[in-house]
Amino acid sequence: MHSALDRVLAEDIVAGQDLPGFDRSAVDGYAVKAEDVVDASQFKPRTLQITNENLITHKQTKQLWTGNPIPKGANAVVMLENTRRTEDKIEVWTSATLGENISKRGEDLSKGEIAVRAGTRLKPHHLGLAAALGKVRVKVVEKPKVAILATGNELAEVGAKLREHQVFDVNRLVLSALCYEMGAEPLDLGIAKDYADEISEKLEFGLERADAVITSGGTSVGGADLVPEAVNNIGKPGIVVHGVGMKPGMPTALAVAKEKPIVILPGNPVAAIIGFEVFCRPLICRMLGLKSEPRPTVQAKMNRRIATTLGRKNFVRVYVFKRNGELFAEPISARGSSIISTMTRANGYVVVPENREGLEEGEQISVQLFDKVEVADENV
Amino acid sequence: MHSALDRVLAEDIVAGQDLPGFDRSAVDGYAVKAEDVVDASQFKPRTLQITNENLITHKQTKQLWTGNPIPKGANAVVMLENTRRTEDKIEVWTSATLGENISKRGEDLSKGEIAVRAGTRLKPHHLGLAAALGKVRVKVVEKPKVAILATGNELAEVGAKLREHQVFDVNRLVLSALCYEMGAEPLDLGIAKDYADEISEKLEFGLERADAVITSGGTSVGGADLVPEAVNNIGKPGIVVHGVGMKPGMPTALAVAKEKPIVILPGNPVAAIIGFEVFCRPLICRMLGLKSEPRPTVQAKMNRRIATTLGRKNFVRVYVFKRNGELFAEPISARGSSIISTMTRANGYVVVPENREGLEEGEQISVQLFDKVEVADENV
Repeated sequence: MHSALDRVLAEDIVAGQDLPGFDRSAVDGYAVKAEDVVDASQFKPRTLQITNENLITHKQTKQLWTGNPIPKGANAVVMLENTRRTEDKIEVWTSATLGENISKRGEDLSKGEIAVRAGTRLKPHHLGLAAALGKVRVKVVEKPKVAILATGNELAEVGAKLREHQVFDVNRLVLSALCYEMGAEPLDLGIAKDYADEISEKLEFGLERADAVITSGGTSVGGADLVPEAVNNIGKPGIVVHGVGMKPGMPTALAVAKEKPIVILPGNPVAAIIGFEVFCRPLICRMLGLKSEPRPTVQAKMNRRIATTLGRKNFVRVYVFKRNGELFAEPISARGSSIISTMTRANGYVVVPENREGLEEGEQISVQLFDKVEVADENV
Repeated sequence: MHSALDRVLAEDIVAGQDLPGFDRSAVDGYAVKAEDVVDASQFKPRTLQITNENLITHKQTKQLWTGNPIPKGANAVVMLENTRRTEDKIEVWTSATLGENISKRGEDLSKGEIAVRAGTRLKPHHLGLAAALGKVRVKVVEKPKVAILATGNELAEVGAKLREHQVFDVNRLVLSALCYEMGAEPLDLGIAKDYADEISEKLEFGLERADAVITSGGTSVGGADLVPEAVNNIGKPGIVVHGVGMKPGMPTALAVAKEKPIVILPGNPVAAIIGFEVFCRPLICRMLGLKSEPRPTVQAKMNRRIATTLGRKNFVRVYVFKRNGELFAEPISARGSSIISTMTRANGYVVVPENREGLEEGEQISVQLFDKVEVADENV
């Protein structure tokens, strides 16, 4: 069952029995007949006789720990702290209502009820509920396979010796780690040089073996569009979107070939990560059978003014931190989207809509977090 | 490097070289000498001659894609959209400042700078930065081993045939899944019957093989304290805390034996989960070398009034949802902490301090999320 953690449930888990399976005590205390303590109080305690039988009669009681079955004849449980024991008797200082402190059979779930719905990402507490119902196996959605290709003559394998003006290929690792995090299985297609034929060949290899392909590099607006060209060589419909009103990530393209989706991301690492957030995350959610899986979102106050580009949806990396109990967002600026340390210095991003030219200092904004916020209030 | 995802970095990743390693273009455009376009405008375009050499001289230019190295002699890049190409010449419609649109060598990180600090939980973007520096291996903290024991005569293995008044053991699975989620390695000690000797024996087995032990069941306040007794039989100092001013989770105990920490949680699944949050999460963070790892926190408005117990820190499970762009928290109530479906119906919890008797309807509260909030704003 461990192995089901963080997987997506493929079919409803239905309670095969009532939960709890029998009436049991919700507290540590004494089982009573409510009528025996009907007017009990601190000034007028009632005395009951302790029994160890599984049946209590008039003026009898039985000690119970949380979870213990309610003995026959009892219809309420008085909490330990409202009693005092003296040898084989107790004094009860409080009255009890019918059913008080009893978890009724089926109160948590009754037989036939849906315990966990298909399409749920299984967290420890979901596994716990399944276990409480005695399930040792649950059906989960198969991991979608996502092939990942990097393109570019300038790219070298991480750890290789760099020739002049070469850079390490960052995106394959980042994109496959992002897939992996979501519960998809990345398939590495390696690096393709800037030749449409080589790119087509690797894409076809990926389309045969995976459920979707993500590429990075080889797409620009008004420039060398090798990947879109290579995709269109493979089959119809090919490229369906090329160029998106967002920043970074404008040269992103979307395609379908061999009936499988292809997301063509720019080569700049930050643009590729943002492109993944916007296009690949919902795609993989869909493949997993999840309606959506938004990142945790917090409200924060802009720490300073920033300018954004009108007419494009701007994804601004920010660092959210807490000061005097209030959350602030510090924009992490950099000239290019190739500056990957803007991602490691940030812990979230703000989406600034197309009709804005920036965000004001002090403005309340909504930040989608991709990493933790360092300090959090523990109390209300 | 994949395998380092979500692990905790054991030593700083230091840049072994400048990043970028050479001056490169931050945009798609044309390399220029800034002085050649000093007063260029839409009304007064400047014409430059295109070259393919790696050197530009007076009134020359070279086309660049993002990431391309800056040719010698150039000191700025003009964006593609501010130019028009006619055969081997371009018209430039804008002036450029020195260094404009150039990512300078070392701008992202300079050699010797710390790229990622020890104690960081590695996310895809951290792996990306390490990859950009050519790292194929990083040192991560060893997974702490946490042994998990359930106690109780009423417990049966999940999937076994239940005898009368038996229940399936939920906590071992939930606690080990919680450990697993944090990056610790759970070690299953099975179920011990309610005999101090059997409990001691299993605890000793766990203490020999693991870095910490978590137990559930066999602890109560003023009742049968089998696990505390069993712990004290093993060695000094034994139990150091027994009984905590919280609800649920009051019978929680903390101990040290054989120089290893033992967290003794109540048997009720919800109390055990809350106890894990409060005591085991920070303990495992410490073992991992993490300062803290708070759950994502959101502000929400209480949907209705609830009463809590004065003098105890109350952990109230809530379901946070969005209505008209505002977050509300609906308390998920149940009489007992054995009702595990209160965890699957909730997505977070609120901590109500000891000096409060409840939360008011409409009160703004801080919720720690353990599952997603269904709808999130995508925009500011």
